[in-house]
Amino acid sequence: MHYFAHYRDFIGVSAERFFKTTIFQSPRMLAGMDCLEPGQRQDAHRHAGRDKVYFVVSGMGLFHIGDEVQSCGPGSTIWAPADVAHGVANTGSETLVMFIVMAPEPG
Amino acid sequence: MHYFAHYRDFIGVSAERFFKTTIFQSPRMLAGMDCLEPGQRQDAHRHAGRDKVYFVVSGMGLFHIGDEVQSCGPGSTIWAPADVAHGVANTGSETLVMFIVMAPEPG
Repeated sequence: MHYFAHYRDFIGVSAERFFKTTIFQSPRMLAGMDCLEPGQRQDAHRHAGRDKVYFVVSGMGLFHIGDEVQSCGPGSTIWAPADVAHGVANTGSETLVMFIVMAPEPG
Repeated sequence: MHYFAHYRDFIGVSAERFFKTTIFQSPRMLAGMDCLEPGQRQDAHRHAGRDKVYFVVSGMGLFHIGDEVQSCGPGSTIWAPADVAHGVANTGSETLVMFIVMAPEPG
């Protein structure tokens, strides 16, 4: 088990959809990175019984959580509670890089 | 319930020990901020059955996780698994600001 990592070693680009990777994982929690290129989006989806929190590291995203919509940049934290529809689109001109945690983990 | 916040609205100083605050909370997860002034520390402690992950936003900290010790700065992610002793000391000259998530939440 590793205890220490830097987010820069866990970012990347996925041409098809968006890039996501796992940094740490247990049955209780998954921590990782979601990266969206300009124009990419996570379509609205729900996680049954599982919360997700985003911390925006760099870039700008337009988040939909339930019925709320907000544009968020670096330092924004976004809460997507279990069973609430959420999605995000990269509305900026640089990569949208987000540290994310889900609990419990999705496995 | 609120879905959106900025970490800057959840930082502060506690003269006695260190500053911590909650941004989002559910039975599954607590997300918040830990802030240590230069010279302050979280003594080594364990969370029974509960993982904690740190994302260093600014400042420098010396982390002890289990038997490992590492100095971490902005962008570092640190994994403190359930039942593993962990602590951190602010070894720098500016406030150590960390976004943290615990799962399940400590209540």
